[in-house]
Formats: sequence, C-alpha cells, structure tokens
Amino acid sequence: MEVGILSKKVKWNAVEQGNICTPKGFSAGGVHCGIKRKRKDLGWIYSEVPATAAAVYTTNQFQAPPLKVSQESINTNGSLQGVIVNSGNANSCTGKEGLQNAYKMREIFAEKARIKEQDVAVVSTGVIGEQLPMNKIITGVESISSLVNCEDAPSFEEAIMTTDTFTKHICLQLEIENKVFTIAGAAKGSGMVHPNMATMLGFVTTDIHIQHDTLHQALREVTAETFNMITVDGDTSTNDMVLVMANGMAGNEQWTQNDDEYTLFKEGLHIVCQSLSQQIARDGEGATKLIEVQVNGAETAHDAQVIAKTIVGSSLVKTAVFGEDPNWGRIVSAVGYSGISIDTEKIKVMIGPILIVKDGMPVVFCEEEAKFYLKNEKIEIVVDLLAGSENGTAWGCDLSYDYVRINASYRT
Amino acid sequence: MEVGILSKKVKWNAVEQGNICTPKGFSAGGVHCGIKRKRKDLGWIYSEVPATAAAVYTTNQFQAPPLKVSQESINTNGSLQGVIVNSGNANSCTGKEGLQNAYKMREIFAEKARIKEQDVAVVSTGVIGEQLPMNKIITGVESISSLVNCEDAPSFEEAIMTTDTFTKHICLQLEIENKVFTIAGAAKGSGMVHPNMATMLGFVTTDIHIQHDTLHQALREVTAETFNMITVDGDTSTNDMVLVMANGMAGNEQWTQNDDEYTLFKEGLHIVCQSLSQQIARDGEGATKLIEVQVNGAETAHDAQVIAKTIVGSSLVKTAVFGEDPNWGRIVSAVGYSGISIDTEKIKVMIGPILIVKDGMPVVFCEEEAKFYLKNEKIEIVVDLLAGSENGTAWGCDLSYDYVRINASYRT
Repeated sequence: MEVGILSKKVKWNAVEQGNICTPKGFSAGGVHCGIKRKRKDLGWIYSEVPATAAAVYTTNQFQAPPLKVSQESINTNGSLQGVIVNSGNANSCTGKEGLQNAYKMREIFAEKARIKEQDVAVVSTGVIGEQLPMNKIITGVESISSLVNCEDAPSFEEAIMTTDTFTKHICLQLEIENKVFTIAGAAKGSGMVHPNMATMLGFVTTDIHIQHDTLHQALREVTAETFNMITVDGDTSTNDMVLVMANGMAGNEQWTQNDDEYTLFKEGLHIVCQSLSQQIARDGEGATKLIEVQVNGAETAHDAQVIAKTIVGSSLVKTAVFGEDPNWGRIVSAVGYSGISIDTEKIKVMIGPILIVKDGMPVVFCEEEAKFYLKNEKIEIVVDLLAGSENGTAWGCDLSYDYVRINASYRT
Repeated sequence: MEVGILSKKVKWNAVEQGNICTPKGFSAGGVHCGIKRKRKDLGWIYSEVPATAAAVYTTNQFQAPPLKVSQESINTNGSLQGVIVNSGNANSCTGKEGLQNAYKMREIFAEKARIKEQDVAVVSTGVIGEQLPMNKIITGVESISSLVNCEDAPSFEEAIMTTDTFTKHICLQLEIENKVFTIAGAAKGSGMVHPNMATMLGFVTTDIHIQHDTLHQALREVTAETFNMITVDGDTSTNDMVLVMANGMAGNEQWTQNDDEYTLFKEGLHIVCQSLSQQIARDGEGATKLIEVQVNGAETAHDAQVIAKTIVGSSLVKTAVFGEDPNWGRIVSAVGYSGISIDTEKIKVMIGPILIVKDGMPVVFCEEEAKFYLKNEKIEIVVDLLAGSENGTAWGCDLSYDYVRINASYRT
C-alpha cells in the first residue's frame, strides 16, 4: 500500500496487521450483549492514560442523545480515556429518557473502567425511535472480563457494524529519530440502513502527544476532505461522528500547529481518514463498485468539492456505473446543476484513461474500451474545469438492485 | 375531478376530453419523421394569431441550443405563433452546429406555417451529444399536411414522449358573463432517461387575452409551486422548459395584474401546471406510486418547499415507500438535513391519516393500518413544523427495481 510522503527522510508506512490497539496504551474489544440476535453489539476503546480528544458530529438537526453526552465529555477537559459503543439501537429520537440512558451508559462504563465519567464518550448506532435496552447494556458492560488488557480490535470493529459487510480499519507508522509513532482507525458503514437508518462512525487512536486545539483543527480540516466527501445516498444520519484520541504515549514533546511535525501528523490523519472513507463508500448498501470523482482546474477547492460530490451523488451517474455504461451526458449534466458557475464550453471529462468530453462536447471514443474499463471494481471519473488550479475528490458507490432491495424491505 | 374555486359564482371546470387544441384558435399535431424507429417524434402547436408568450427554462448551466433559440424568439416580441418539437434527440452539447440546426429548424417551420421566425419556439428532447438529423426533420416538417387545421393534440402529446409511459394533458374551462375561457396543457416526463437524459417539457395554451408581463409573472410564480416542486431523481436536464401561449381569441379585454380576473387566471394556470406536474411525477422512471409531501407550519413558504422537496427527493424515503414501509425515521432525518432550521422537539409527521411522529418522537401506531395505507397508488406525507403558518407541497415517486433497470441498461 502506498502512503503519503512528507520528505525523503520520513514516511508513513502501512502496518498490515495493525489496528486501533497498535498505538501504545490502547485497548479495545467487543462482546454480544443481546441487542442484536447473535452478532457482537457492544464495543469499547480504552487508553491507559487520558488522551487528548477531538470529535466532529453530524450536521443533522436531530442529534441523538449519545452525541450530546460525548460532546459534553470532550468539552469538559478536552480529553477521553474510554469510548463505549453499542450497535442495534441508535438511541435517537428518544427524548429525555434517551438522554438519561446515554448518561447512564457513560456512568456504568466509567465505573467499570475506573475512569472519570467526563473522560468517556458514548456512541450508539442502529434503529431509531426505540429506547435502549439498558439492562442488556448494563449486563454487557459487567461481562467485560479484561477491559484494560484487551487488544481485540477485530471484536470492536465487529461490534460497531450494522449493515456493513466487512470491518474497516487501517494503521500507519512512522519513525523519527528512533521514536515510533502510530495512527490507526476503525469505522463503520455509511448507507442509511435497514431497519431505519444508521450511521457513519470513525474512531482514530494515536500515541502521538499533540496539543488539543491543534488536534481539533487537524480533524476538522481532514474530515472536510475525507469523511465529508463520501456520499452513498446523500442522506446524513442523526448519529454520525468521528472521534480522535491522542494519548501521547509515544513520548514525543507535544506537537503544535507551529511544529514541522504538524504537517506530518495531518498527513497521517488524512491517509487514515481517507482510507476509512473509501472503505465505507465501497461498502455502501448494495454497492458493487467504488466511484472516485476528481474535479481539477476549479477556481476554489470548495467549487471542486461541491461538483465532485454532486457527480458522485447523482442517482443517474450511480446507476450508469452499475450498468457499466460510459454515460458522459449524466456526468456533464450533474456538473451543470451543481450550483457552481462554470464555463460549459471548456469542460473536459475522462472516465478512467478514456477522454470522453472535451470543450463541453463529446469526443469519439472506443465504446468497447470504455465498457471494459467500467468492469473494474474502482471507477475513476476526472473532470477538468480549466478555470483555475484547485482540486477536490469525492467517493461514492454505484446504485444497484440490491440498494433498492435492502432499503425497500419492511422493517420487521 | 375537483378544481379550485375563486368564488361561488365563477369556477374552473375540468373538460374531460379537452386538450391544447380546445382553447380557440389552436392547432396541434404530430408525425413520425424517423429520429425514433417507429413512434411519432415531431410535434407542433400553431395559433391562428400570434399569442402572448412566456417561458421558464432549466437552471442547468448546459442549456441546449433550442432553448437559446426559443428564448430569442420569445424575447423579440413577447409573442409566439408556433412551436416545433422533436423527440429522440435533445440537440444538447452540440456546440455551434447544434445552434445552427436549431435556427434551421425554426426557419423551416416558420416557412411551412407562413409565420415569422421570431414567432416560433424550437424544442428538442432525447439523446444528448449528437447532432440533429436535419434531413429527417426537414422531410418531417414538409410532410405535415394540414398544419393550420389540425386538431390532433394526442399526436402532439405522443410525439414529445421519450420514456414516458402515458401522455399527459389537462383542460379547464370557465364561463364569465357568457364568455368561455379555456386553459389547457400537455407535458412530457421528468426522469432523466435512457439513453442519456431527457427533459421535462410543459406546454400551456389559452385563449385568454392577457398582458405579457402579467403572463410571465403568473408563469414564474406558478412554476415555483408546481413544476419546480416535482423531483424524480434530483437531476435536472439541459432542456427543461415550460411555455405558455395566450392568443386572446376568447375575446376578453386584456387582463393585467390589477384585474380581479388575474387571480382567476393564475388559479387556472396553477391547476393546469399542478396536474401536469403530478402526472409527470406519477410517470417517473420505474415509479409505482405518486408521493405527495406537504409541509405545514413553516416560518416561510420557502422553508416549507425546501423541506418538502428534501423529503420527496430522499432515496431512502423513496425506497421505503416502494417497500410500503412506514419508515418515519427516514422522513424525520430528511427534515433534519434539509438545511432549514427547525425545532426538532415540535415536529409532527403523518403518513396518510396515521399520526406517526409527535413532538419529534415516534408514537405508537398500528403498523397493519400503515402498511394497508401504503398499498395506495398515491401516498401523502404531511409534516407539521409548528413554527409558523406557511405551507409547501412537493411531488415525487418511489424508487423501484425498475428505476435501476431503466437507468443501468447500456445505451446501445
């Protein structure tokens, strides 16, 4: 796997077997507590010492109670030492009782882990509009045998899944002057899912010692270019959240925005978040292909991002990719209604290596070659606006019969 | 069919067998010129006298050449006497040659009908990125035998179809002091269609004598509440257009915005455009159900419209309706990400007659009753924000396996 390069000397390397427990001092695990019928449904992350923490949350106005509690925790000291996550029930649209339950969940996990309540984040994903089965969660937390010494990230990754068809993780390492630094991540799906809706969740752990505001700023900037640039069906859930914990156990002097290492950190965080985002897009409901849309030559990065997201979010582009049809008209049309002003007589479009539109008009291309390219599992669409030098990339998936099947089936 | 009522005295009545030829002085027809294999593909409207004309056009930045030519015609004298429409080829993304062809099409129809070029609108719908087969269009126009005396609206309605599965029309009449006034309309589908994309087209004819600016203003206002409130898949085409011709042959004194009759005219135009919009939504690609979303209690009409369109445009709401699943979570979530600020603890949602969300939380409802209601062919969703007194309604259709099949199939 190729990763970014800051300089010739220092380079992030993918750790094939690494996961969120690879950064020093992190434990994680997952159990079955009975919200779901059989699969693991309760996971946790624990850090030996309180970690500097930052998070970004859904912009959906219906924010679920656990988000509010996690936000409160992080805002208290800017730190977290533990995270408790359940799947199968989103504790969303559950009113005051839902909020009390989220607080209760935080309390019992803090007790179990013997850490401060204000250092615990609470996350839920699954059905909305139903109260959490608190007895099951309490029993589940009590049943955790080795919370502190558990390095079972795969169980955590499984316990946070809803309609995901595979677990999502990545781990990077870097060495500077004989010190090893690690950043790792785990995530779950993005399609708003059966039975109601689910959630995009991202968890990043690192042993780097980094200043709180710096961490928060890096997460905000990186999220804008990664998690916010994936779209499976355009809907955003009430529980979306991405969370970073940096426990400083790598032993470095604290990095801040003025340090050279900040760029390095941000680069690593970017690779982690981008990889998780692509994994989520690839696992969109019913998806058979990952679509990457790159928009070049825009006047601003914002313009490029909006156009890239509009293309990758178009139901017609998505169905065309599913049908392996090099349908340039739908791509061009999506650019046209994106709301970003462009010169329609300049636009250039490529599907993979094949030029299909130049100066806003179709060019003759080999349909057989295009159809052959579209058989790939990852489809790259590149649009050049020839208006400036800014770029933006978005990821999504195709729209298949299975998307309809999954989302049209009755909840019970 | 129930229609609006201005007062107890004056009332628009639906004319069951009426069509765009019913208003005095209008002819219409359609022939097969060979762009499509078998079906009619060239239609026209003709008025005995030049008609006051107004039109609204797609906001897509890739405006097709025929739109530019029609715009030029209407802007010259504010009048039209004829409209020539072809289907099978959108003359879009065709550059200078496409523009020349659109002018040529205008010219030959003007000659045939012996009217001014500046009184002719040109409309195309179908495949984009291919030049019009001008020889076929010329031969087609020449073959029209009785342009002036043809009252064959059904052939016109057929000639403008692309993936539409039925023709779309409506006709209303009103009597004031022994004078009969007629407004009628024809339209074609909205799904961006196989093989590339197609177009929403609306044509309204009336024999009412009305001032030009008044007509334009009425069309703009009515379109905002009707044609702009339908969404089949969120994509807008390069050729969308709605056009009104008012030839004044009913013999009334010219109506202007200050006249009482203006309200009456606007009401009639609204009924016509709303009916055509609903017919288009119902005929969305692969649609099995018409969805009507009404948002009440908003602070502004704009807020209500944005939320209604967001709900009816949500792929998850659309698939849930296809699956006959009363999935309130997806409705509430769409409200939450619509971008309009609301009080999440006040919102009320009904699916048909069944209350499913109150104070932002689900209420107990009979699932069987809801499932039974969702078997209807028209599904009404009502959201009350309890924030003000403004309303908005949007129409759309469900998202079915057939939508994927139609749009994923290869173009050739």
